[in-house]
Amino acid sequence: MTSPRFPDLISRLPATVPFVGPEVQERQRGMRFAARLGANESMFGPSPFAIAAMQDEAAEAWKYADPSSFDLKNALADRMGCTPDNIVLGEGIDGLLGNCVRLLVQEGDAVVTSDGAYPTFNYHVNGFGGVLHTVDYRDDHEDLDALAAKAREVGARLVYLSNPDNPMGTRHTAEAVADFRRSLPESTLLVLDEAYTEFAPEGTNPPIDPSDAGVIRLRTFSKIYGLAGLRVGYAIAHPDAVTGLNKIRNHFGVNRVAQQAALAALQDQAYIEGLKREIETGKRAYAGIAERHGFTAIPSHTNFVAFDVGGAERGERLLKALQDRRVFIRKPGVPPLDRCIRVTVGPEAERAIFEQAFAEAVAEVG
Amino acid sequence: MTSPRFPDLISRLPATVPFVGPEVQERQRGMRFAARLGANESMFGPSPFAIAAMQDEAAEAWKYADPSSFDLKNALADRMGCTPDNIVLGEGIDGLLGNCVRLLVQEGDAVVTSDGAYPTFNYHVNGFGGVLHTVDYRDDHEDLDALAAKAREVGARLVYLSNPDNPMGTRHTAEAVADFRRSLPESTLLVLDEAYTEFAPEGTNPPIDPSDAGVIRLRTFSKIYGLAGLRVGYAIAHPDAVTGLNKIRNHFGVNRVAQQAALAALQDQAYIEGLKREIETGKRAYAGIAERHGFTAIPSHTNFVAFDVGGAERGERLLKALQDRRVFIRKPGVPPLDRCIRVTVGPEAERAIFEQAFAEAVAEVG
Repeated sequence: MTSPRFPDLISRLPATVPFVGPEVQERQRGMRFAARLGANESMFGPSPFAIAAMQDEAAEAWKYADPSSFDLKNALADRMGCTPDNIVLGEGIDGLLGNCVRLLVQEGDAVVTSDGAYPTFNYHVNGFGGVLHTVDYRDDHEDLDALAAKAREVGARLVYLSNPDNPMGTRHTAEAVADFRRSLPESTLLVLDEAYTEFAPEGTNPPIDPSDAGVIRLRTFSKIYGLAGLRVGYAIAHPDAVTGLNKIRNHFGVNRVAQQAALAALQDQAYIEGLKREIETGKRAYAGIAERHGFTAIPSHTNFVAFDVGGAERGERLLKALQDRRVFIRKPGVPPLDRCIRVTVGPEAERAIFEQAFAEAVAEVG
Repeated sequence: MTSPRFPDLISRLPATVPFVGPEVQERQRGMRFAARLGANESMFGPSPFAIAAMQDEAAEAWKYADPSSFDLKNALADRMGCTPDNIVLGEGIDGLLGNCVRLLVQEGDAVVTSDGAYPTFNYHVNGFGGVLHTVDYRDDHEDLDALAAKAREVGARLVYLSNPDNPMGTRHTAEAVADFRRSLPESTLLVLDEAYTEFAPEGTNPPIDPSDAGVIRLRTFSKIYGLAGLRVGYAIAHPDAVTGLNKIRNHFGVNRVAQQAALAALQDQAYIEGLKREIETGKRAYAGIAERHGFTAIPSHTNFVAFDVGGAERGERLLKALQDRRVFIRKPGVPPLDRCIRVTVGPEAERAIFEQAFAEAVAEVG
């Protein structure tokens, strides 16, 4: 029987996906990675209290989760200095990005981002028929002036900024971000992706102001909280945007075990403080490794480091050579960012695996 | 600062949600339900192997899940007699329904369902701007002839059928469903919601035929597998539809703990067979309870029973009286289905709680 036709928008979409998981490489090569340093996961794992919360909740998995995420939302609101009406939980920032795009963007609407920034945002913009306009990074930072100028030029509905930035690990100050936000047209909404904000110094992003209807801030339990596999992100926004997102989201999408684990993880800030110190140590170690091989580590405000290895081809060969040594990393795909490889900061044991494998890879690649 | 305008479609959507969770009632009343019989969850819980799998996976929650769900998809394909290319995992059937609607329905497109059928389907149709056309149930069954006639009349892009049916628990035979599917226009896709199929006798739905591009079948780990809180559903479909869904879905949306738990649950079919027998026992017990109070239990092919209590008002009062006795149930909201209350079949202890509370509620309501 013949197939019902999909809308042209769907038919035109590429079948490629933003990220192929490391499991695919593992299956293709018939091996397990010894160090999983490519997705900026937290190899330190979540707080032991979060693990215990998951284990305790396992027998309750037959119950649907609370679709209003009451407990977690209230805990987040307390911590963020806003009200629960300013928060929407979602299936990771990925899920929230999809809903943010759906909330604002209709077919043909202009959207602005940086060339080389988070591909999953672009995936959703394409998926809803938005038209992407990109600007280049400048000095390994997202270029705030260029983003704002482009937003004005094309009449953007959405502009995307991650601060600190992925994949470069750089950041802008809170003041610069606030100036940037004020420079956007009234009809433009800023999606501020703060996935890595907990790794950055105080003052990296402006104070949360939920009365500003022009910004949706996105945060996650996937990075410093070590719960990437559970899928919990949250949006902090003006109540109008929250109402909008609540009109379209999958209300039972944030699973029960995840809600309990996230709550426990959030409450264990002592563990998080310890991680921050450990990651600073790891970043200094990475800078030393880079230097010993004649490369530079771009100063990072995240849990990963972009190693400038001097060229895209060398970067690609290093990535493959590391893969041969069971070390999973990724690299930016767009010039001039693609002269770098991006390596997550793991615990000491995994850093040692990386150091050894990197030395061998550099010797092989030259 | 002023708020960027949302598209008219979004602005027009109601802020109401399909289901308010029982947790909201618990908070409002300051009590916990003693028997949670309103969402057709499996109070029997998942297989002990699934619980163990969740507990084992907890410490791995820092890793993103495999976005291709390789292991689970292959296990499902083996069991369903199809290939992994016929399967898409999603965040419950709710998440998959959203993507199915997005795949087929553009603003203004006609969609057909039964008045009183699954509200979350309608939520997604409204959310993507589809125009809902409904037909009435006939004799407490979804009316296949009327659905097909309406689909032809309005040129429907999608038609929704759940078999067995929720909220009535009735079913059509495989032959009737196959005839129905053949009677649909070529431009109409059938979304066949099989959430309850494992509770029904063999032959309730047609054999899986992934060469038929006109059907997407939806199944779940939320019902008999007892994993509602984890959010794992799957679509079985023609590769064209699978490709389409893969172009738009949240690729990292199905969490890691859920994938492991679902795999373990799927492999423990002995546990599932035991549950089926227990639920049959429970349904007979419910029929007896109904009869003793002068009501009838509509014969059910699911894990719940619709009690015909003879009128919408009495049903509403019984629901509230049960709530007062810490028993959570739901009821259909549309005539003539609303003369019923819908009660999930739980284990013996919860059935006893229900029996006692129901006797008191009937005495109170009359």
